[in-house]
Amino acid sequence: MNTSHWIWYPGDFEIYHGMLQNFSREERGFIWPAYYHLDDCRKHVRFTREYDLEKEETVTVYANCLGYYRINDVKKRFGEPVVCGPGKQKFEIYAGMPAGVPSVRIEGETIISDRGWMADDFVSNPVPVGYNEIYTRREQDPSVWVYDEKEYLPTEVHEDETGVLFVFETELTAILKAEFPEGFREMTLCYGESETEARDTVNCYYSQTLHAPEDEIIRRAFRYVFVPDAHKDEISIKAVHQYVDIPVRAAFSSSDALINKIWDVAVWTFQLCSGIFFIDGVKRDRWIWSGDAYQSYFVNQYLMFDEDINRRTLWALIGNSPIRQHINTIVDYSMYWVIGILNHYRMTGDEEFVKAIYPRMAEMMDFLGGQLDENGFIVGREGDWIFVDWADMDKTGAICAEQMLLAMCYRTMAQADELVKGDGSAWEKKYEALTAQIEKFYWNEEKGAYIDSFSSGKNSVTRHANIFAILFGFADDERKELLMKNVIENDEIPQITTPYFKFYELEAMCAMGRFGAVKAMMESYWGGMLSQGAVTFWEEFDPEKKPEEQYEMYGDPFGKSFCHAWAASPIYLLGRYFAGISLADTAYKSFVVKPETETFETMNCTFPVKGGLVSVKWDEKMLTVESSVAGGTLVYGGKKYVLEPGKPVQTTK
Amino acid sequence: MNTSHWIWYPGDFEIYHGMLQNFSREERGFIWPAYYHLDDCRKHVRFTREYDLEKEETVTVYANCLGYYRINDVKKRFGEPVVCGPGKQKFEIYAGMPAGVPSVRIEGETIISDRGWMADDFVSNPVPVGYNEIYTRREQDPSVWVYDEKEYLPTEVHEDETGVLFVFETELTAILKAEFPEGFREMTLCYGESETEARDTVNCYYSQTLHAPEDEIIRRAFRYVFVPDAHKDEISIKAVHQYVDIPVRAAFSSSDALINKIWDVAVWTFQLCSGIFFIDGVKRDRWIWSGDAYQSYFVNQYLMFDEDINRRTLWALIGNSPIRQHINTIVDYSMYWVIGILNHYRMTGDEEFVKAIYPRMAEMMDFLGGQLDENGFIVGREGDWIFVDWADMDKTGAICAEQMLLAMCYRTMAQADELVKGDGSAWEKKYEALTAQIEKFYWNEEKGAYIDSFSSGKNSVTRHANIFAILFGFADDERKELLMKNVIENDEIPQITTPYFKFYELEAMCAMGRFGAVKAMMESYWGGMLSQGAVTFWEEFDPEKKPEEQYEMYGDPFGKSFCHAWAASPIYLLGRYFAGISLADTAYKSFVVKPETETFETMNCTFPVKGGLVSVKWDEKMLTVESSVAGGTLVYGGKKYVLEPGKPVQTTK
Repeated sequence: MNTSHWIWYPGDFEIYHGMLQNFSREERGFIWPAYYHLDDCRKHVRFTREYDLEKEETVTVYANCLGYYRINDVKKRFGEPVVCGPGKQKFEIYAGMPAGVPSVRIEGETIISDRGWMADDFVSNPVPVGYNEIYTRREQDPSVWVYDEKEYLPTEVHEDETGVLFVFETELTAILKAEFPEGFREMTLCYGESETEARDTVNCYYSQTLHAPEDEIIRRAFRYVFVPDAHKDEISIKAVHQYVDIPVRAAFSSSDALINKIWDVAVWTFQLCSGIFFIDGVKRDRWIWSGDAYQSYFVNQYLMFDEDINRRTLWALIGNSPIRQHINTIVDYSMYWVIGILNHYRMTGDEEFVKAIYPRMAEMMDFLGGQLDENGFIVGREGDWIFVDWADMDKTGAICAEQMLLAMCYRTMAQADELVKGDGSAWEKKYEALTAQIEKFYWNEEKGAYIDSFSSGKNSVTRHANIFAILFGFADDERKELLMKNVIENDEIPQITTPYFKFYELEAMCAMGRFGAVKAMMESYWGGMLSQGAVTFWEEFDPEKKPEEQYEMYGDPFGKSFCHAWAASPIYLLGRYFAGISLADTAYKSFVVKPETETFETMNCTFPVKGGLVSVKWDEKMLTVESSVAGGTLVYGGKKYVLEPGKPVQTTK
Repeated sequence: MNTSHWIWYPGDFEIYHGMLQNFSREERGFIWPAYYHLDDCRKHVRFTREYDLEKEETVTVYANCLGYYRINDVKKRFGEPVVCGPGKQKFEIYAGMPAGVPSVRIEGETIISDRGWMADDFVSNPVPVGYNEIYTRREQDPSVWVYDEKEYLPTEVHEDETGVLFVFETELTAILKAEFPEGFREMTLCYGESETEARDTVNCYYSQTLHAPEDEIIRRAFRYVFVPDAHKDEISIKAVHQYVDIPVRAAFSSSDALINKIWDVAVWTFQLCSGIFFIDGVKRDRWIWSGDAYQSYFVNQYLMFDEDINRRTLWALIGNSPIRQHINTIVDYSMYWVIGILNHYRMTGDEEFVKAIYPRMAEMMDFLGGQLDENGFIVGREGDWIFVDWADMDKTGAICAEQMLLAMCYRTMAQADELVKGDGSAWEKKYEALTAQIEKFYWNEEKGAYIDSFSSGKNSVTRHANIFAILFGFADDERKELLMKNVIENDEIPQITTPYFKFYELEAMCAMGRFGAVKAMMESYWGGMLSQGAVTFWEEFDPEKKPEEQYEMYGDPFGKSFCHAWAASPIYLLGRYFAGISLADTAYKSFVVKPETETFETMNCTFPVKGGLVSVKWDEKMLTVESSVAGGTLVYGGKKYVLEPGKPVQTTK
């Protein structure tokens, strides 16, 4: 970062665009803002820095907002070159704006706006500024996000007596451009993720009647567009797909054509849901949900390895100070936010980010800490939502899954304190104490499982806490197998019904080596969607239901999202457990490749790691693994092989 | 309020426009935002209400923002008429916007947006909505303030070899409109509150070069406009004065022509500084300063009796939650804000406002309460400004004037608690305890005065705390006379040098019957400005300085504001102490008229009271007093006369 960047108060950029994101949900002619509190960013900030110049130089301060600045207490105007130096130059920049992200950009020779500048909001202590590699050019405005664009023409156009249907090759998030070869007349565009939706001119999610040819059409998610009572000669449309260009760095193919197709569709699903932020779905909700985002961090790590979308999402989720409400009102979602920072740090080694967001983590821990009971367990307050999952679960008093997340928050803070203060032992102690309490209050020897609630006396067992016990390591290896038997593979325990929590269950199964069962689930669940014509993966899928019964959700005939981020989990499972790539130390300083070569006959795939790529390839006879970076160890057939950068390791299968 | 109003979260309207106000200070080609933290209003709010309709009616919800609403959980679009009822109708309106004041307006028969609606921000408990009598029409947008306008043509146009000077009859806050009879060419408009300033094309505060005839010219404060290197045939200008139309309800004339002129100029000065909010000055700072506003509440009471500008100013000053900084960073200004609410309540009986702002008062008292020392005295924290006045004062540790203001805050809270909770005794006790502490630590028997600081051991006496002791009644009558002798009339005590604190000193002198001295001060100080050509009263005036030395302040050659609200204090002094009108009970339920007929030979004046007017008139022989409302008592010549509405009381002088 030794070029000039636009700089702002850290988090402001993400908080502002996050607010806009949460204001972007459209439904049948209105905007549905999120049902929880939304913060805007600061509207008035100060940037400061001191330089000691060896020689004179010319500097210009640009701003996207109102204000002025001082050099050595002399007032200056934005946008006018100023000669300063030699000697000490004390800069103070005052930036305000009623709407947007107050930002400045400084162009000099040695004096430029980079991360050496500090920001404050006239109350807080100065902190290093926020910036983004996307905003480095003078003509940009950080209040405005400019999407990449790609034009799509319909691949099919069908006309019948009811109107004309345009079909695109896949789902898009696009602005429609309409032309009227025979002259304009009023027409209505009815959108659909499915043909059925587009043709239902009353119940389709989005529709817009054009009253004039120049009517603005906003960005929407769709694959089908139906124009009732029109002929195909009267209107032609194209779609300008707007997206954030985050390169896919992984590749996958195997001997299993269905899984290959699942991979491709999962990739497109995930790309559509990875915009400025990780959102849940592109038609609905378009909100930033912390629980959904937490799963996206995993998929991102194995697909795009984009560090900035993690950061943007984490800043947007926490919003502005003070914390007055749980993220998305959900207690577990606040905790996923904390733990998500640990995931991000372990993936990236992004110390700068952890240090920048650390005060907000501390604030969140205070907020969480304000609702602990006498056992140190977290319990809901009025207005809090103890979610965990859409499942019939005993939520009396303090419940087990929440305590396990809290313990992981303590573990996260131990790591963060280690980084920021050099000592994480205080949080480590809390972690130890809480895990002991979990063991004492929730482990039920008789059932051989963790119970949801101890205070109700019901001792009921569901899958959720037991999955966490496997994934987060609260159970040792012996107990993990017990949990598989007593819970995960016990049909008497109610099944997980949401793809959201299915993610964790499948991961637990992978972790416990149930690869065949996981592959079978991919084939039946994701493969089932494909067999019903899916071009992106859905929010939910019941293989028992016929295609025409798939649209309804939440009591809305087209309520279900047909492109939902959490449905992209096969990407993560394939990379983490079948290719078998896992980090052992922060930022892949060391990592392990432990391919599962039994389930697939052949596989040829590449996954990103920090700073490079790892390819894993096997055919009927040979396994070949290559890493472009150091630190890797291939673990296979009871042996370990050091992966030297650029040097393939080959072994018989 | 039984017509439909625009409604918003209480305070949001004022916080948003207050932010814009504090972003409106211009200086030499840049905007100088206030140096302290500025809040924006909420960007996402919910409005709720339940109705039980006897019969069906049609309702339309309008919004200036994005969102939707639900009736009995069924989603509806803004702007579309909906038939609802009969029976229970549960309304929930979701309103969001990235910039501005999210607001809605509901039009039905019985269902309208009035004060019966509740608002919340998804975290706070629902509270009665905010509204304003100005915003009642559908086509309005509460994010936009529309000024009243009046066109002024220059009264003089002078041309010489340097350019052309346009002179207006008085100072204005106007948008200039320029025409170019001989065709457009690039020209520069140089503004001045004085001719000297306008002619100083380098140092004048505002100037703007027109590069095209349609260049936008913003609202500025000026009396003179100089266009260098232009001829009067080339350019003609007019000024569109933009103002908030707050009627003046007082009138004054006396046997003293100079005082009459002072009155007129003070009125215009105050009108210019009374816009959306009470601001300090019209050229500079255009910020809302709590200490300045506190004085404006007094003048307003006797000149315009406009309740809403008080409310608007008080909401804008406190900003959004949480309180993180003292108002304008100044500890005393936070306390004037609290006390200002008592003044407003006593003047107006505005229970609705006190109840609405009460949570913020409580929050401010918590904030103040967090910085008390072991004696219960308030002391500054890092970043706090203990101002009191620009004066050489011993500010070691806890200082006396601040404790007196704190005591008045306690008194205010006692009244507010009485109103909101029915019992103010807890705050009354704090008041008693603090006044006892003030007596113990600050009263110096030897000096016969209150000292500034006890912790320094210097026992130094300045006027400020002693003035407060008189005005706020910490001293009894006997001690007040002692303070007059030992402090106010003691030339060894350094003089007050600012018109800001001079306000309080003059009031104290009036309260102590020093009418002649006060009138003499008006003649020398305010009369002195007039003799130097003032058309509005200045931020500061040193009669010793020549006219050409009057422009400089704060090290800036034209830094002094020539139209400053606090210079309008004669209005208050004349009404309160010479006409002698004072309220005895909240909202003038009872009030006293005690004219001071000795200082002026004749006087004929009218001043507002709650709901009416009181006229006080005397000539050489007779005094006539009339009130349009009940509750008044004339106290004169040792007698009391009941003032019955509309019935003049006459007595010999």
